[in-house]
Amino acid sequence: MDDLLQKMRSGDRRALARLISLVEDRDPAVRGLLSKVYNEREKIRTIGITGPPGAGKSSLTDQVIAILRGRGQTVAIAAIDPSSPFTGGALLGDRIRMNRHATDEGVFIRSFGTRGSLGGLSHATREVLLLYAAAGFDWAVVETVGVGQTELDIVDVTDTTIVVLVPEAGDTVQTMKAGLTEIADVFVVNKSDREGAQRMKADLELMVHLKDDPEWTVPVLLTQANAGGGVPELLAGIERHREVLAKSPRKAARRAEARKAEFLEIVLEELSERLALSLKEKDLSSVREALASGKTNPYAAALDLLQDEKALLAALRAGQSILKS
Amino acid sequence: MDDLLQKMRSGDRRALARLISLVEDRDPAVRGLLSKVYNEREKIRTIGITGPPGAGKSSLTDQVIAILRGRGQTVAIAAIDPSSPFTGGALLGDRIRMNRHATDEGVFIRSFGTRGSLGGLSHATREVLLLYAAAGFDWAVVETVGVGQTELDIVDVTDTTIVVLVPEAGDTVQTMKAGLTEIADVFVVNKSDREGAQRMKADLELMVHLKDDPEWTVPVLLTQANAGGGVPELLAGIERHREVLAKSPRKAARRAEARKAEFLEIVLEELSERLALSLKEKDLSSVREALASGKTNPYAAALDLLQDEKALLAALRAGQSILKS
Repeated sequence: MDDLLQKMRSGDRRALARLISLVEDRDPAVRGLLSKVYNEREKIRTIGITGPPGAGKSSLTDQVIAILRGRGQTVAIAAIDPSSPFTGGALLGDRIRMNRHATDEGVFIRSFGTRGSLGGLSHATREVLLLYAAAGFDWAVVETVGVGQTELDIVDVTDTTIVVLVPEAGDTVQTMKAGLTEIADVFVVNKSDREGAQRMKADLELMVHLKDDPEWTVPVLLTQANAGGGVPELLAGIERHREVLAKSPRKAARRAEARKAEFLEIVLEELSERLALSLKEKDLSSVREALASGKTNPYAAALDLLQDEKALLAALRAGQSILKS
Repeated sequence: MDDLLQKMRSGDRRALARLISLVEDRDPAVRGLLSKVYNEREKIRTIGITGPPGAGKSSLTDQVIAILRGRGQTVAIAAIDPSSPFTGGALLGDRIRMNRHATDEGVFIRSFGTRGSLGGLSHATREVLLLYAAAGFDWAVVETVGVGQTELDIVDVTDTTIVVLVPEAGDTVQTMKAGLTEIADVFVVNKSDREGAQRMKADLELMVHLKDDPEWTVPVLLTQANAGGGVPELLAGIERHREVLAKSPRKAARRAEARKAEFLEIVLEELSERLALSLKEKDLSSVREALASGKTNPYAAALDLLQDEKALLAALRAGQSILKS
């Protein structure tokens, strides 16, 4: 572990990729390492980009990368794949658009699936951002497709959330008002040469003003990501938001909330692994058999265990070796 | 609680709705009740219907309801809403199509959001199905939109999973091969009057035969849900699958697996609530302060707690009153 960490810090991308795989596999051995690098999290600037499929999020990310690289800054991308069997193919296609940066040492791109992790996507993504920070990147971009609830869960993970829309979605502004004004720090109307772009901008600006936030008025920006139009203004907006956030008491409150959530996620994930192990081969094997035969039901068995402190402790002891390894 | 249960059993729909709300709110008081009704789960027949947005799932569900009602059987629907801010409006529209059954006492329809539950959607849905079974419905239909991973998670919850596709999606068959043949017990090509329906059917049948399951060959059925075409054949297919499953050793294995998963989910949810309470006002309040001030990080704090058996037990004791209430 320490060797991998050393290598990652010195710029070894394979070591970074290996550590990310351990995070994805929920390997408990990586938690000690994440504790060591935790305080470096503040050094990286993080952007979240979300929006419906086809809004041009990957093109926008691609252009943002180009500008940051032009300044000599390094960027790591976490592209979150909702891994739907119905949309899988299309997403892979999107990702290919960023490939022109694939040979650039200052850019790191990795896609993530969403299955398996107990704390869900936000938990694993936070851990990947810790690794990106420790690897020394200046910026991280988390790109999520807004097809389910994931784009809402992921919001707390980054400093600035950009919601990308296209003019075609204009008529749905009313229905999605609530959810989107909550999460957007910056709105982008992409493909702004299309009909209805100005109208959508006006609608969004109205929504934003209704929010009436004294600290930050969410800007609504027009872009044409394919040609790079409006992207420098987007980056300027992101940096302004960052400055406002840095001075805000909200930032400290958000950080404290995030730390509490992370703490709970880590403890629960570990307890979950221990219980599963107990159920498999140790103190809870009789519970397993009673469940399989139908002698008890899951609710009765759970309530019994929860009310029996000694049994609970024994069950939670089972996997301690996992932790120490 | 017992009063609500009594009322629900005697056909009081408001009592059912109230209990469902308690499940949605993750109220621990409902767990004792679920233990009581658990063994009635076997009495209800359950169907899962999934597919991409616009495939006609709600129309199909509507037609399935009509046939079952014609036989004098009762049906309860759980319509799972992935609650995306980008698709919210469209889904609501879909649901309206089922409204012709809204005044029928033998039909119960309820939509569910996906946020908040620790065990995710499948956990809450399983609990709702327990309530539907205890309320005496003959059939339950779980309808999910295939926009994320939810449609995969929900599969284990019902006896028979129907994947609905439309001819337009034909060219993506290759990319989704793996995921869909895994989950489908029955394939439906809806809007079968459209070009490409026969071709899609042939493609899917090829996929299905590659699976080479000696017990069950997944049928590929053509429907025109708007006009009811092919729906009786679909129901016949569902019933054949049910008969095959009933005789299969796999069914018992699946049930045992599901019970183990439920047991773990309930225990972890309860432990999660206890830890959150400890963190808020009891044994972990010093941890909360150390996290907020940055004196410790979530990983270090979690590892400390997990290695200190006494502290862990104290923290897990905190919320026991929740359970007993």
